[in-house]
Amino acid sequence: MSGINEKIVIDFEPISRRVNFLENKTIYEILIKMAISVRSLCGGLGTCGKCRILVQKGQEYLNSPEASEKKIINTTDLKKGWRLACKTKINNDLIHIIEKKKSPQFRILLPDEFILEDFKILTSGTNKGVELNPAVKKLYLEVQKPSLDKPIPDVERILSSLTSLDNNFSEEKSITFDFRIMKDIPHVLRESNHKITLTFWNNNTVIDIEPGNTVEENYGIAFDIGTTTLVGYLINLYNGKTYSVASKLNSQTIYGEDLITRITYIKDNIKGLQELNSAVLHDLNNIISKTCSKANINPSHIYEAVMVGNSVMHHIFLGLDPINIGLSPYIPIVKQGLNVKSRDLNFNISNQANVYILPTVAGFVGADTMGVIVSSRIEKEKDLTLAIDIGTNGEIIIGNQEFLATGSCAAGSALEGAHITDGMRAAAGSIDTVKIDPDSLNVSYTTIKNKKPIGICGSGLIDAISEMLKSNILTRSGNFNKNFLNHEKINRNENGIEFILVKKEETTLNKDIKISQHDVRELQMAKAAFYSGTRIILKYLERQLNRDLNIEQIFLAGAFGNYINKENAKFIGMIPDISSKKIFQIGNAAGIGAQNCLLNIDLRRKAEELKDKIQYIEIATKKEFQREYAESMYFPHIKHLEFFPSLEEYKNIPKR
Amino acid sequence: MSGINEKIVIDFEPISRRVNFLENKTIYEILIKMAISVRSLCGGLGTCGKCRILVQKGQEYLNSPEASEKKIINTTDLKKGWRLACKTKINNDLIHIIEKKKSPQFRILLPDEFILEDFKILTSGTNKGVELNPAVKKLYLEVQKPSLDKPIPDVERILSSLTSLDNNFSEEKSITFDFRIMKDIPHVLRESNHKITLTFWNNNTVIDIEPGNTVEENYGIAFDIGTTTLVGYLINLYNGKTYSVASKLNSQTIYGEDLITRITYIKDNIKGLQELNSAVLHDLNNIISKTCSKANINPSHIYEAVMVGNSVMHHIFLGLDPINIGLSPYIPIVKQGLNVKSRDLNFNISNQANVYILPTVAGFVGADTMGVIVSSRIEKEKDLTLAIDIGTNGEIIIGNQEFLATGSCAAGSALEGAHITDGMRAAAGSIDTVKIDPDSLNVSYTTIKNKKPIGICGSGLIDAISEMLKSNILTRSGNFNKNFLNHEKINRNENGIEFILVKKEETTLNKDIKISQHDVRELQMAKAAFYSGTRIILKYLERQLNRDLNIEQIFLAGAFGNYINKENAKFIGMIPDISSKKIFQIGNAAGIGAQNCLLNIDLRRKAEELKDKIQYIEIATKKEFQREYAESMYFPHIKHLEFFPSLEEYKNIPKR
Repeated sequence: MSGINEKIVIDFEPISRRVNFLENKTIYEILIKMAISVRSLCGGLGTCGKCRILVQKGQEYLNSPEASEKKIINTTDLKKGWRLACKTKINNDLIHIIEKKKSPQFRILLPDEFILEDFKILTSGTNKGVELNPAVKKLYLEVQKPSLDKPIPDVERILSSLTSLDNNFSEEKSITFDFRIMKDIPHVLRESNHKITLTFWNNNTVIDIEPGNTVEENYGIAFDIGTTTLVGYLINLYNGKTYSVASKLNSQTIYGEDLITRITYIKDNIKGLQELNSAVLHDLNNIISKTCSKANINPSHIYEAVMVGNSVMHHIFLGLDPINIGLSPYIPIVKQGLNVKSRDLNFNISNQANVYILPTVAGFVGADTMGVIVSSRIEKEKDLTLAIDIGTNGEIIIGNQEFLATGSCAAGSALEGAHITDGMRAAAGSIDTVKIDPDSLNVSYTTIKNKKPIGICGSGLIDAISEMLKSNILTRSGNFNKNFLNHEKINRNENGIEFILVKKEETTLNKDIKISQHDVRELQMAKAAFYSGTRIILKYLERQLNRDLNIEQIFLAGAFGNYINKENAKFIGMIPDISSKKIFQIGNAAGIGAQNCLLNIDLRRKAEELKDKIQYIEIATKKEFQREYAESMYFPHIKHLEFFPSLEEYKNIPKR
Repeated sequence: MSGINEKIVIDFEPISRRVNFLENKTIYEILIKMAISVRSLCGGLGTCGKCRILVQKGQEYLNSPEASEKKIINTTDLKKGWRLACKTKINNDLIHIIEKKKSPQFRILLPDEFILEDFKILTSGTNKGVELNPAVKKLYLEVQKPSLDKPIPDVERILSSLTSLDNNFSEEKSITFDFRIMKDIPHVLRESNHKITLTFWNNNTVIDIEPGNTVEENYGIAFDIGTTTLVGYLINLYNGKTYSVASKLNSQTIYGEDLITRITYIKDNIKGLQELNSAVLHDLNNIISKTCSKANINPSHIYEAVMVGNSVMHHIFLGLDPINIGLSPYIPIVKQGLNVKSRDLNFNISNQANVYILPTVAGFVGADTMGVIVSSRIEKEKDLTLAIDIGTNGEIIIGNQEFLATGSCAAGSALEGAHITDGMRAAAGSIDTVKIDPDSLNVSYTTIKNKKPIGICGSGLIDAISEMLKSNILTRSGNFNKNFLNHEKINRNENGIEFILVKKEETTLNKDIKISQHDVRELQMAKAAFYSGTRIILKYLERQLNRDLNIEQIFLAGAFGNYINKENAKFIGMIPDISSKKIFQIGNAAGIGAQNCLLNIDLRRKAEELKDKIQYIEIATKKEFQREYAESMYFPHIKHLEFFPSLEEYKNIPKR
């Protein structure tokens, strides 16, 4: 029966972990066996309902819902594929049928609230320091009382007190009150003995009036809306300090892992846009309440939110149809930064709060890239700088003081663990660094949180493949070296050739962790996407400027970019061959960009200026793309001596 | 039994008609007898439910609701006093009890939709002509299509087409799109082959996007929110023409005839403000649909509304608590003109439309007075001009090129027919002009629409009392002249002394139409309010400027001001003694002011400037007020030779 087990694989999302079927085990038991911490109060009795999962593929091969499930899950949800993990297993009767047929695919979504493990979502990064000049400011004011001699209306008395207090407000005519707070004015004035705090947005709109002095209760929140992960930073705008950070997996992953799948969902479902919009808003509101309760703050004291995200995330968040971004010539609705009232977005912060979304660039290159540019200050660099933001979608920025250009490449999610035999996201138990002894081919590795290994994450994969190259296990074309095919560490079976990284005895699942030929190809595609994208943009700029250009500095942004081994990223040919001293890991630069713009409005003006200066290059439609991409599939590149002269080890690695 | 009939009076509102009880007749039959056209489909069978009335006083003396009423009116409404006119009569069993007790009072409200007669609501006026420069402009645009070479987002392509088309839009960065229309952009662009019409507010905000060329479909609506009547003017902002006008009695009259009563209602009822706000919004939306259906226009093509109204109407319309306007020192919440989104007011016009409310002045002097100033251009007059706006509340403006001052006086609603024995609003069958032959005391009169007389309206009352003075029936103190007490036209009964204006044989109700001592007092109070108010403001200005001032010109504004006999208004001492050639009836000047501001934004800036220049004088709190008021109670004034030297006829009229 073990053959069957091997044939049947279950992809667990959004953690991107693929495991083999375990006979007679429920999904709950399989997860426990995988050492993935999941929530349950009843211990698998089917009574607590905490272990709800969504079966997205393979529903027909599962046991029918039990009575206990029908009690907890309504009929509509059952039809959609919702089950209790502790009551769901593969239908034993079907195993024989499956044996004769093509292996069925299973895809099971584990809702956020079911997974206890915190994923390694990168929330920190290089903050180059910004002066505090937020759009939202509070001012404490003692307002003159009215009299029969001076029967001045409330608003005008406030304005004249303001003028006498602060020269910034001398032109009182330009100040308006948000209509929603006007009704509160008479009561707040009279209940507070005319001592009030006003909240200004952009120095010209009064968006809150409170009794007494509350100038220190002034908060903003910066959001990074990633395709897969969402992060929120709660910041006090009075002192500039970050009070709390919270993150969450984007619930939109239920509708598709990548952007194209989500656009297709929207295209095919009348309410698709609304569903995806609600999903992300629900997540963001969830982050708001998490950050607020961590910091013990009332969400109504959050007066501004600043957002970054790629064009598709940007559009869906705003309820704008992203369909034209997915169709040639790849046109977003809007590029300029937008200011929207939180009440128009159903955001659970102050009703009068402003929501600012950074400008986008073009195509898929969105406000997140603008965030990277703003926080990395690439436009101030003398050296020609390459910045790559490595996420589910990859963005490439090339520029310096003189010019800026950008493009996006479909890097795929191999680096996030998807579609890799034993791949997984960076989480406890994932192999994150690898060393291979070239003589013995013995592997040494580390795992996150030093747990027994479960799978391999992106940085581990780059390390493993670099080391396999250095040990001659792989050739420059990415094939397994024929000389090693009989080595005890090499498996040959129906799945093709595999290198055994960790023997099953050492693993949690008691199952070998391997790097297959397929895995090598996935990594080649990902790294080729980045390298060829960089080449296309660079050549475009060279033609335009009519001179040769050389990358002098590299910024690696994004969660993955931060954990990567710089030398090995260069060694596999993902990034150009420059000194590692000039390669900087700048962390979640997009999120930092959002924070910077929250803290300082001048940076928003800067972003608006830059959006018109950045050239956008549609990489995949350039005629040289196919060739550049194919050449970049080699390790480090087909022209390795020309492009990667410093990588002397390649002299000993066979080409094919 | 006729004694009982005389004792029991019913006040019908909002038409302000008082009639005597008719035994065994239903309210419906009494109304028919009064020749007031009312709506009924079933002819009084109690089945159609069209004749719903609200009994506001005297409910306890009426028959209990019949089964047919209980079918049509729900229990809550029945408890509130809603009845069917055709089934409601005074309880016969109670007549004997009533006989022994004080006369009960009845007040019955006739809902707007029940009255078929159009009231003489003044919608026209003197429009001094304004250049067309509205805040809302439409522009037809052919937008460049996107390409792979120029993958420019939709909004930015629109902006660049705009810049190339019109130099006014060269600074494209200052243009923003109303967030609500952004989602329509991609569809409208692509469905219309990139030929679109944009609607701009204030040259900087795009508030609508439509396929094709719709530049001529650009409408605005101007509203005059009176205490008693509401008028709406639908104007095409492309050509400046008024397309239709509609008016309606203000449903707030259910909650009280005057402003103080309404403020008290709001103070005493938690949901009072909400109720009054809903009442007026419902009315205004009703006017919107009336004007639109008259002109065959889609309300979504109305992109702006401009409003005038006194401070209390202004506050209630905006949902702002007016309570502090009614308490010393009489403080409104806001003075500056306001721009509010129609969607924040639940106004049934374009969701993105702007609603502009003219600035107020102080106390009760509101945006309506600002409307009068804007439309009459009083601030450009060389002659010292007195403008009075005669409504339920009276506003006085005195000024010229040099200065402007204003105040309000509680004129009461005598001039609108209330509290006058046979008074009524200006409607079909009301006596509007009166002549009395001094020798025979024979009365000649005219009525509105030449119908048999039912009662007397404001202009008729002023005429009648002027003529009674000229005929020596009244003395200068307003008493009946003792020499005439035995004249056949004079009645003396328990109600006091009455002059019979029209004998019952000539009237619809077969009942004398009379002017009682009480009626004369009511008119004296009204005219004294205007005259003493004018005196107080004038004296205030004289002290301030340290020189004598004389009124050289008078503008009579408001519905009533338009129908009044100028000579007689002067004769009773309501307005100063100047040549009638210098007295101008300028009609609904407040409404015209709203229209002017809708047509031309420069006039809004003018209004904002003027609001800070106008002096406000709190008339009733000035220490000389009591004396001035008492002296003004005389006809024409206690100092008649000093103040009214041209009225020679007064030489022959006894003082007391």
